[in-house]
Amino acid sequence: MDYKVEATAPGTSARAGLITTAHGTIETPIFMPVGTVGSVKAVQFRDLRDDINARIILGNTYHLYLRPGTEILRRAGGLHKFIGWERPILTDSGGFQVFSLADNRKLTEKGAQFRSHIDGSKHLFTPENVVDIQRAIGSDIMMALDECPPGTSDYDYASRSLDLTLRWLDRGWSHFNSTEPLYGYSQAYFPIVQGCTYPDLRKRSARHVASLGADGNAIGGLAVGEPAEVMYEMIEVVNEILPADKPRYLMGVGTPVNILEAIDRGVDMMDCVMPTRNARNGMLFTCHGTMNMRNRKWADDFSPLQPDGPSYVDHVYSKAYLRHLFIANELLALEIASIHNLAFYLWLVGEARRHIVSGDFATWKAEMVETLGRRL
Amino acid sequence: MDYKVEATAPGTSARAGLITTAHGTIETPIFMPVGTVGSVKAVQFRDLRDDINARIILGNTYHLYLRPGTEILRRAGGLHKFIGWERPILTDSGGFQVFSLADNRKLTEKGAQFRSHIDGSKHLFTPENVVDIQRAIGSDIMMALDECPPGTSDYDYASRSLDLTLRWLDRGWSHFNSTEPLYGYSQAYFPIVQGCTYPDLRKRSARHVASLGADGNAIGGLAVGEPAEVMYEMIEVVNEILPADKPRYLMGVGTPVNILEAIDRGVDMMDCVMPTRNARNGMLFTCHGTMNMRNRKWADDFSPLQPDGPSYVDHVYSKAYLRHLFIANELLALEIASIHNLAFYLWLVGEARRHIVSGDFATWKAEMVETLGRRL
Repeated sequence: MDYKVEATAPGTSARAGLITTAHGTIETPIFMPVGTVGSVKAVQFRDLRDDINARIILGNTYHLYLRPGTEILRRAGGLHKFIGWERPILTDSGGFQVFSLADNRKLTEKGAQFRSHIDGSKHLFTPENVVDIQRAIGSDIMMALDECPPGTSDYDYASRSLDLTLRWLDRGWSHFNSTEPLYGYSQAYFPIVQGCTYPDLRKRSARHVASLGADGNAIGGLAVGEPAEVMYEMIEVVNEILPADKPRYLMGVGTPVNILEAIDRGVDMMDCVMPTRNARNGMLFTCHGTMNMRNRKWADDFSPLQPDGPSYVDHVYSKAYLRHLFIANELLALEIASIHNLAFYLWLVGEARRHIVSGDFATWKAEMVETLGRRL
Repeated sequence: MDYKVEATAPGTSARAGLITTAHGTIETPIFMPVGTVGSVKAVQFRDLRDDINARIILGNTYHLYLRPGTEILRRAGGLHKFIGWERPILTDSGGFQVFSLADNRKLTEKGAQFRSHIDGSKHLFTPENVVDIQRAIGSDIMMALDECPPGTSDYDYASRSLDLTLRWLDRGWSHFNSTEPLYGYSQAYFPIVQGCTYPDLRKRSARHVASLGADGNAIGGLAVGEPAEVMYEMIEVVNEILPADKPRYLMGVGTPVNILEAIDRGVDMMDCVMPTRNARNGMLFTCHGTMNMRNRKWADDFSPLQPDGPSYVDHVYSKAYLRHLFIANELLALEIASIHNLAFYLWLVGEARRHIVSGDFATWKAEMVETLGRRL
């Protein structure tokens, strides 16, 4: 994997870059649609590629490990071939999902034991075997196994958790460097900065992460309930330490405003289920504000979803029709809203990049942040 | 509406025709995907038009009357504009749905009283007001209100039911002829032949229907549990009477084999929820037989869904991947399977037409009926 910075935005830490992978290039900043179990929910791959213009998607190691399983993925020749997606894929390590299982997991020095949410069967994720699983998946970018402590953790817990995460990181990094990809193309391995909302822990974590010299680096454990300002502060603390010549990936973030604020602070990559999950709940994001499509006010609004919207669904379907589909519980509603929201997220990061390159990112961002928060 | 026969198939009653409506032409025989409440379930209109190549779709008056309601449809300028579909639309009369409500409806000379399945509110469908509702919908082809007696009705009930249906038909026909379309283009009105499985009732009904000289005629009350051979016999009895220079629409039919047998007996139009409903249950129809996509046998079959299939989904998605999506309960599974099945149904009637025109329909049909029934 290769990364180069192509432009920076005066008065901010925002940068426009280009990541090169075995499955093509990615202009950054970029948003990565989440394809949990090998499918971006409700969205056809053709639409994902041609209408949404997704450049890279994310898969969840936890889900893919359970279904279809590494044996099937290996025999398919990896996830790209299995799902028919030729552009880059990033996979998380499974840690976040495992730690979301609450009572169904147990943490040891060796790794994270858990029970499948599907059939209750027992499994163990270790820093080493999640590398092996991601080798079988064949993702272009693999992630290190980390502990994701609750956002409310006290300093003592957060510190001990970070120590474990760093020991796991060294084991995973070592295993990554002593194993080969399975399908003839190279894979990158991103370490993850943790440390909850404690600046000194974040710094310690970032220094350790930076010292590895990985192809890219991630920031985890944010957007888990802390105030947005605290999240932004942590990003700043960390990005001062993470190398500027490598891409920075902020995991699981976020709202359109979060995304612009993160870009402003030097983040290059983001992912979140918000555009697709909220779509399925009837909420559309637009550059003019958000719309709850179940609202009665749209019942007789026959204008297009978004006359200046970036996706074809914005032009061929009306607000009244989409509202009708949601009220009537039609599957088409979920599809239209998902395509719209993802196309909007990709438009947003594309516009951010354009304004970074043209030099007026700061002004554009300030205006955009103001309109994004409106309720239409 | 205009119809002309373009070719007939030697040794059968099959014919290739052309229906002309205000929203374009329809080559017959044709299958009409069902868009119950203004959406063909799980399918984008772009795919319906360009990939599935649907020439006409069906809407259900009962469902559209309840949601979004005639007031919204009238203000939208009709269903075509409301849903953004520029090709022809046929609407049923609502009768079939009302009679499916069992305890929640009451039959009188005036019409059919029923309670909404959504909120329990009371409504009345009459032969006249279902014309008015379909005027508001703006369908290219409207259907008469009929009673759909149970398939198991005894002769006495079937006969009295038919009498009522014929009185309703005369009222509806008269109302149709004394009202005008609302949106500047003409609408056709098809009467429906009933009579359960009693040949003399079917004949009486068909003679009455034929006497009206409508633009097209329908056969209802079949495929409701009677043996297929009985259905075919009823089609033959009726089609001997229904005018050959008008299209014949067999309502709610059916399996791919049913469709070929109906075409063989002179039917021109068909609709059924089977391709979409079965798709959502994981069943694919192909010209080589049917596939249950939840079956374990597909888990490691990485070949395309149908290498010689008519739709793009047949080529870009594998059997193993679609099986995985069904097992993981992903919405994309429903979309892929629905597109596949509808594209197959449209392919099937298109091939039937091609073979009618080229003169070898009978041979082709015999071979096809043999393979369609296989389980892959």
